Amino acid sequence: MSTEHENAIQTEGDLLRDALARSKRKRVRRILRTMHPAKIASLLETLTPLQRVAVWQQIDEPHEAKVLAHLSPTMRDELRREGDQDGLDDQDDQGQTSSTKTLADAAGESKPAVQTQLRLVLEALEAGKLKRIARLFRKLHPARIAGLLESLPAAQRVVAWDMVDHERAGKVLRHLHEEVRRRLAAEMDLDDLVESARGLEPDDLVDLIQDLPAKLGREILLALNRRERERVESMLSYDEESAGGLMNLDQIAVRAEISVGTLLRYLRVLDVLPPNTDKFFIVDRKGRYQGILRADRVLTARPETSIADLMETDFEPVSVDQPGEDLARRFEDQDLISVPVIDAGGHLLGRITIDDIVDLIREQGERSMLGLAGLDEETDMFAPVLSSSRRRAVWLGINLLTAFLAAGVIGLFEGTLEQVVALAVLMPIVASMGGIAGSQTLTLVIRGLATGQLVAGNARILMLKEVGIGVLNGLLWAVVVAALSILWFGQWAIGAVIGVAILLNLLCAALAGVVIPLVMRRLGIDPALAGSVVLTTVTDVVGFFAFLGLATLVLL
Amino acid sequence: MSTEHENAIQTEGDLLRDALARSKRKRVRRILRTMHPAKIASLLETLTPLQRVAVWQQIDEPHEAKVLAHLSPTMRDELRREGDQDGLDDQDDQGQTSSTKTLADAAGESKPAVQTQLRLVLEALEAGKLKRIARLFRKLHPARIAGLLESLPAAQRVVAWDMVDHERAGKVLRHLHEEVRRRLAAEMDLDDLVESARGLEPDDLVDLIQDLPAKLGREILLALNRRERERVESMLSYDEESAGGLMNLDQIAVRAEISVGTLLRYLRVLDVLPPNTDKFFIVDRKGRYQGILRADRVLTARPETSIADLMETDFEPVSVDQPGEDLARRFEDQDLISVPVIDAGGHLLGRITIDDIVDLIREQGERSMLGLAGLDEETDMFAPVLSSSRRRAVWLGINLLTAFLAAGVIGLFEGTLEQVVALAVLMPIVASMGGIAGSQTLTLVIRGLATGQLVAGNARILMLKEVGIGVLNGLLWAVVVAALSILWFGQWAIGAVIGVAILLNLLCAALAGVVIPLVMRRLGIDPALAGSVVLTTVTDVVGFFAFLGLATLVLL
Repeated sequence: MSTEHENAIQTEGDLLRDALARSKRKRVRRILRTMHPAKIASLLETLTPLQRVAVWQQIDEPHEAKVLAHLSPTMRDELRREGDQDGLDDQDDQGQTSSTKTLADAAGESKPAVQTQLRLVLEALEAGKLKRIARLFRKLHPARIAGLLESLPAAQRVVAWDMVDHERAGKVLRHLHEEVRRRLAAEMDLDDLVESARGLEPDDLVDLIQDLPAKLGREILLALNRRERERVESMLSYDEESAGGLMNLDQIAVRAEISVGTLLRYLRVLDVLPPNTDKFFIVDRKGRYQGILRADRVLTARPETSIADLMETDFEPVSVDQPGEDLARRFEDQDLISVPVIDAGGHLLGRITIDDIVDLIREQGERSMLGLAGLDEETDMFAPVLSSSRRRAVWLGINLLTAFLAAGVIGLFEGTLEQVVALAVLMPIVASMGGIAGSQTLTLVIRGLATGQLVAGNARILMLKEVGIGVLNGLLWAVVVAALSILWFGQWAIGAVIGVAILLNLLCAALAGVVIPLVMRRLGIDPALAGSVVLTTVTDVVGFFAFLGLATLVLL
Repeated sequence: MSTEHENAIQTEGDLLRDALARSKRKRVRRILRTMHPAKIASLLETLTPLQRVAVWQQIDEPHEAKVLAHLSPTMRDELRREGDQDGLDDQDDQGQTSSTKTLADAAGESKPAVQTQLRLVLEALEAGKLKRIARLFRKLHPARIAGLLESLPAAQRVVAWDMVDHERAGKVLRHLHEEVRRRLAAEMDLDDLVESARGLEPDDLVDLIQDLPAKLGREILLALNRRERERVESMLSYDEESAGGLMNLDQIAVRAEISVGTLLRYLRVLDVLPPNTDKFFIVDRKGRYQGILRADRVLTARPETSIADLMETDFEPVSVDQPGEDLARRFEDQDLISVPVIDAGGHLLGRITIDDIVDLIREQGERSMLGLAGLDEETDMFAPVLSSSRRRAVWLGINLLTAFLAAGVIGLFEGTLEQVVALAVLMPIVASMGGIAGSQTLTLVIRGLATGQLVAGNARILMLKEVGIGVLNGLLWAVVVAALSILWFGQWAIGAVIGVAILLNLLCAALAGVVIPLVMRRLGIDPALAGSVVLTTVTDVVGFFAFLGLATLVLL
């Protein structure tokens, strides 16, 4: 061996040891790919057994044999055993089916399979069999990989993330929730990240850049060619959840004058059409939107027909600043696959496709559920304890204020409580019944507002209906609670007081459940986020005040 | 006039008066359509002014002039004024734009427009200008009409429903939520309902029949021809939310041996393809699924190419009994438009398209939000007071049991409360902080279970993380609440007791938030429905017990 060669080994070896020490597995794999099998083999001989196994897990399977050929016989056997175990492990395990079958199941898409995949990944991580993860990932759709990564605790997630081939990393990033996406992108070497980002569609790229720290985003932009960069930069200016932010630039736009035959020749040149191409867009000489041509019309028309005869001019385009929520409703109502997006001057800018709308609808559903618990920013189940604690503390703090308010009301009646301690025992019942009834009304009204089905003209009727329900349920539960309280404490007066308090609180809960979200909406506050706190405050305060106030009047 | 003629007038007049008296406006319209303008005119002369206006609102606009021509001059002027007012009303109204503009806006799809439409309908109902509603409805997509109908209070909804042309009534029914759909279908005359149902796709027809009383469903089935009936009956046997229940039968299936040219000739015969046809399905001689051919491959291929060369055989079909939830995830992950559905023998049965999946995702989102408030069956904002009250009473009753349990715990410490009444004042704070913290954890776990991201392998780590958050937030708020309580009551011991109780309750809330939904899932109970009640019970009981128990030990 020449000195130069030795130096080269040394340098690559150092890089590799450094990457190993810092657990940068993607980098280890990248370095290994540039190395000759013989070099890898001699490097392996110099490593500690632990390091050796770690490096071995990063060697691509097709290259294993070549590297083995260059190893000393003992080491070859050692590593070959390491490799074989991969396949054998599961068979050794009594309770499990053979690994081939499990993997075949795992590649399917039903839910048990999803959970089987997750279990496989968790086991492989436990056993340090990273190759097994890489093998599974290669069989799965990027969205599924994203789902698996999100299911992993933070430390293990980084390890598994390193086993995603960087050609697919961009697509996986696209499918991750914002918080996880930001963290995993930050884990990557900059050039890997840039490389992965390159494979993305412009709209996904825009999403990714918006979620990354500004510096990383700039690096990605710089790596694009001028035309791509200009496109992405123009899209970055739109709000993430407006038509502009959801829009893609892969539309096929043609002029009305051409014939179906000409269009078909053009499509044949393209060979593969962009996904979700259910219609083509017709533009005039200046790029202004004129109408649509459904793809199936092209299939069924004769080649000599002019597109002008087949196009539909009454298909309404979407304005670039239209909010995503309205778009989702239109897609849903009209069963659309794609719609054209135009600017204020009527020029065709791009199109929005159903896949992005489906993601939007799912996210909205999730957000409204998480929002009710004050968790709207907590999209990562395994976010670090400290940042989760901080975010949740805000919600607990707000709640504490309202709890102290309720306590303050109780405090007004200390004298009464001292004399009739039974009141302290029954007190939470009044508040809790009001809270439950109120949140039922609140949920219905929030939904009505979100769907646009509630306006000034029908809100009064809804309120009447809710008050009606409040009266009926108020009477019913007033009687039940009064009877139980009398049985418990043997005092008619206590029963009467709690019954009236419950009726009052349920009526008040119905009113508050309708009024609070309507007022919040008018003030520009999202009732889905803050409504329930305000409502509980009202039902607590009214409940305690009515119950203890009445008791003071009647019992003392 | 012959006697016979007079009799006929009389009979139709009777029918009409009867329909009017019973507010069956759809029937009135149907009768009017069969009558000669002269007959209608002479009938109008015999009616009371109120009846006359009501009938006039049901005469189709194109026929107005013909009927007017047969009327006496005074009545003609009277009714013409009635008609003219329709157009003038809005202009007379100072605060409003001209009706043409409002209607044009209303036909758009942005949210302000949705609310404008609703306002228009409510105003028209108020003024009895039913024709205006019919005119608006004719411009709108059935889904939008359904949305408007759902926004109307029950009585007004029936009136507006009668203004939906019965040719479109089926499509509108398809877009209504189950509860509303059932009510409005019951409002229709049977033959109208059968007629409307006929225009539906088999899968929508199946949905409709499943929601109707068995008797009505049978009538609809009987009105179909044998082939249709057999199809629908076979689909009725599948679970509504399984692949079979979501499946449609409009797929285009071809054999692999034919050429693209042959396929194109076949498609030209069809002329219009079923919506969402992004792929064709390849079957063998026995109808067994072989693979897919993407529609854009047909567009870009040369006519002589064989389909066997273009088809993809690795596209995984869906089994007819696969649950809808998994399907939704697959559509979402893989950005699909349609998938083939096969039976256990591999035969192609039908296909599932994205529009039904979008509806499913939206419904799931809604249900999980409504379910948290025990409202999962309350899809009609304007359901009758009595049935709403009954449904909600169940939830209130369950909650009452848990409230009495909490009260029972407080009752154990009556002696303590008698001596230190400050405890009664602070008590709700401990319970409420625990409830909020617990519901945050619970929400996260329920979401993890729903997405399949939570399994035995990572549940322990999630629990550790949640307990960690519980410790941090517990310490923080223990200190804050203790400090505030000492300031309020001037007793160090009370501060210490409430601080420790809050820490304990937040820890317990974290554990319960993870464990309760996992146990429920294993027992086959939906944690999204019942989880929060059980959780609040735990945090109330633990909170009260810890606080009052510690106080008894420390303060007495």
